[in-house]
Amino acid sequence: QSTFNPSDHPHRRRNPMLGEWVLVSPHRAKRPWQGQSEAPDLVERPAYDDKCYLCAGNKRISGDINPSYTGTFVFQNDFAALNEQVPEYEDSDPLFATVAERGCSRVICFSPDHGKTLPEMNRDDIAAVVDCWQSQTRELGEQYQWVQVFENKGSVMGCSNPHPHGQIWAQHSLPTQVARKQQNFSEYWAAHGRNMLLDYVERELSSGERIVCRNSDWVALVPYWAAWPFEVLLLPRFTVSRMTELSEAARISLADAIQQLTIRYDNLFNTSFPYSMGWHGAPYDASDHPEWQLHAHFFPPLLRSATVRKFMVGYEMLAEAQRDITPEQAAQRLRDLPAVHYKQQ
Amino acid sequence: QSTFNPSDHPHRRRNPMLGEWVLVSPHRAKRPWQGQSEAPDLVERPAYDDKCYLCAGNKRISGDINPSYTGTFVFQNDFAALNEQVPEYEDSDPLFATVAERGCSRVICFSPDHGKTLPEMNRDDIAAVVDCWQSQTRELGEQYQWVQVFENKGSVMGCSNPHPHGQIWAQHSLPTQVARKQQNFSEYWAAHGRNMLLDYVERELSSGERIVCRNSDWVALVPYWAAWPFEVLLLPRFTVSRMTELSEAARISLADAIQQLTIRYDNLFNTSFPYSMGWHGAPYDASDHPEWQLHAHFFPPLLRSATVRKFMVGYEMLAEAQRDITPEQAAQRLRDLPAVHYKQQ
Ligand SMILES: O=P(O)(O)O[C@H]1O[C@H](CO)[C@@H](O)[C@H](O)[C@H]1O
Ligand SMILES: O=P(O)(O)O[C@H]1O[C@H](CO)[C@@H](O)[C@H](O)[C@H]1O
Repeated sequence: QSTFNPSDHPHRRRNPMLGEWVLVSPHRAKRPWQGQSEAPDLVERPAYDDKCYLCAGNKRISGDINPSYTGTFVFQNDFAALNEQVPEYEDSDPLFATVAERGCSRVICFSPDHGKTLPEMNRDDIAAVVDCWQSQTRELGEQYQWVQVFENKGSVMGCSNPHPHGQIWAQHSLPTQVARKQQNFSEYWAAHGRNMLLDYVERELSSGERIVCRNSDWVALVPYWAAWPFEVLLLPRFTVSRMTELSEAARISLADAIQQLTIRYDNLFNTSFPYSMGWHGAPYDASDHPEWQLHAHFFPPLLRSATVRKFMVGYEMLAEAQRDITPEQAAQRLRDLPAVHYKQQ
Repeated sequence: QSTFNPSDHPHRRRNPMLGEWVLVSPHRAKRPWQGQSEAPDLVERPAYDDKCYLCAGNKRISGDINPSYTGTFVFQNDFAALNEQVPEYEDSDPLFATVAERGCSRVICFSPDHGKTLPEMNRDDIAAVVDCWQSQTRELGEQYQWVQVFENKGSVMGCSNPHPHGQIWAQHSLPTQVARKQQNFSEYWAAHGRNMLLDYVERELSSGERIVCRNSDWVALVPYWAAWPFEVLLLPRFTVSRMTELSEAARISLADAIQQLTIRYDNLFNTSFPYSMGWHGAPYDASDHPEWQLHAHFFPPLLRSATVRKFMVGYEMLAEAQRDITPEQAAQRLRDLPAVHYKQQ
């Protein structure tokens, strides 16, 4: 009987933030792929597109005209999933539990340049996006318990306009994923008297095998329990529970970390790399939340090339996430890529 | 102040099986869609394709030749995510928990006819698929605690071969989604002394507003907490905890229910309707599990048409599932469709 080897043998790893497991099948990416292929995003776009409803000066579907903005630009989503005009309602029936939800949905244009996504923007312009995330979160955190900052990048991730932009949805309740993290962070704090993600980042830094890139404040790594092939967790190396608490220096080093990571992503398959990303931090209630550490997730769908993605379908929807390469293999591939964007090489 | 109306106002509904919430935004499907469009499956396929590795008599990637099968045909997946040759291993580190996993992955061809998916098969041939699910589950349930029967239908659901087929993955551990159900069914049983899904099906039958179709044994309905636009939960109207316990009569009526439902699905957008579906029942351990009721989930991605799907991306991955029409609207649309397949009309 041979000994267990995680690079060879199917096994499960536990996500301690969500209390979920992932099935790791190290050699499954070897099977030939005859299924759907995605359209890679290789288009060069102009800095201004007169048909884009996010470009400066253009008219939106609502009839509103965008201002001639020069940095970031935030507006209320014209088809908001959450809004303010909701009467209170709650039913706690065990089979039909329902609660009315108030909130708001906003769109953030990252810059007026229609043709440049984050990895092609310069560090100061990325820092302006970080500043915008912070000021939006501060404003909405005064009214709502939860503020979800996120970006869907690429049409394969449901993004309906290539103009670089993200979204913010704010709401009263804690969403399911966040409520799970709240519980697991609290339990870890109770059991160990320490912050889970601070413990975790220290152990990852000393091992090094899942690190993608880093600077003095931030680390991008493929988490031990990553579900998506090239999933990344972006972690601060210092204690900080919320986006609103980041100093100017930490925002600038964050812009650097985002630039390093997203350039590697584009370089992996020489394409504008699709993903959904977003931020999680302590809820905006009255508590201190020493158990929480601010962090960002990047969930990219691509697996083998610019055209072949991972499908999270049958087994994954009914049982649990399953991955076809190990997180260590994914981290090494990303780590070994050039730090300069392929279009600039 | 108006009163709360679930067809107008954003609200959250709780999935009592998984302990998850879904955000319902009743009017969001009105926004214009400028994003990715899917390739609808409108192709007429021959009954035999000499390039298909699932057709009878053809060679597979492994070099094996398929027999000249006439009904269903089961074989070991040539690129199995789970296998038998795994040494034991377990590490319970709170941040790096790992467990070796043994199991097996099989493929089930539903019939030799390359060109007909479930909604176009006749009831007896669908009943043969149900019989196959049952005999496979019986065999694998003797060796494994969990047997996951599922089907990925359509290239948009990661299916890489249009020949009608499904899969079975069996394993020692209880996967995450199943472990969550085990906990919630047990808690309901402890609190109410009744089976959650039997209580639920009774209340849905007396209300009727989320029923899609039914016969004397089975009901297909859009669950109150559905996440996918046209998600369906297929429930028995009698007590049965596992696939292995279905009588011959119940298997035939199940074939009828599957036929009724999948015909309506194809008729919704006049296309071969993609979905992932699969079965959940009591684990194969030594216990009786009166808290469990056998059931199937259908998770179809389409939202507005044969080409426009729902994307479960940024907000959904980071916060919780969000839907753009109500489950009641979806149920009514499916219920009102003709019971005869559009190609036969
Ligand atoms: O085994 P298949 O059909 O090639 O693979 C499909 O189903 C599997 C189980 O849901 C998924 O892990 C794959 O991502 C999907 O492409
Ligand atoms: O608001 P958008 O960008 O049009 O919509 C996109 O992001 C939303 C939030 O993740 C999703 O609900 C939609 O399915 C997706 O298409």
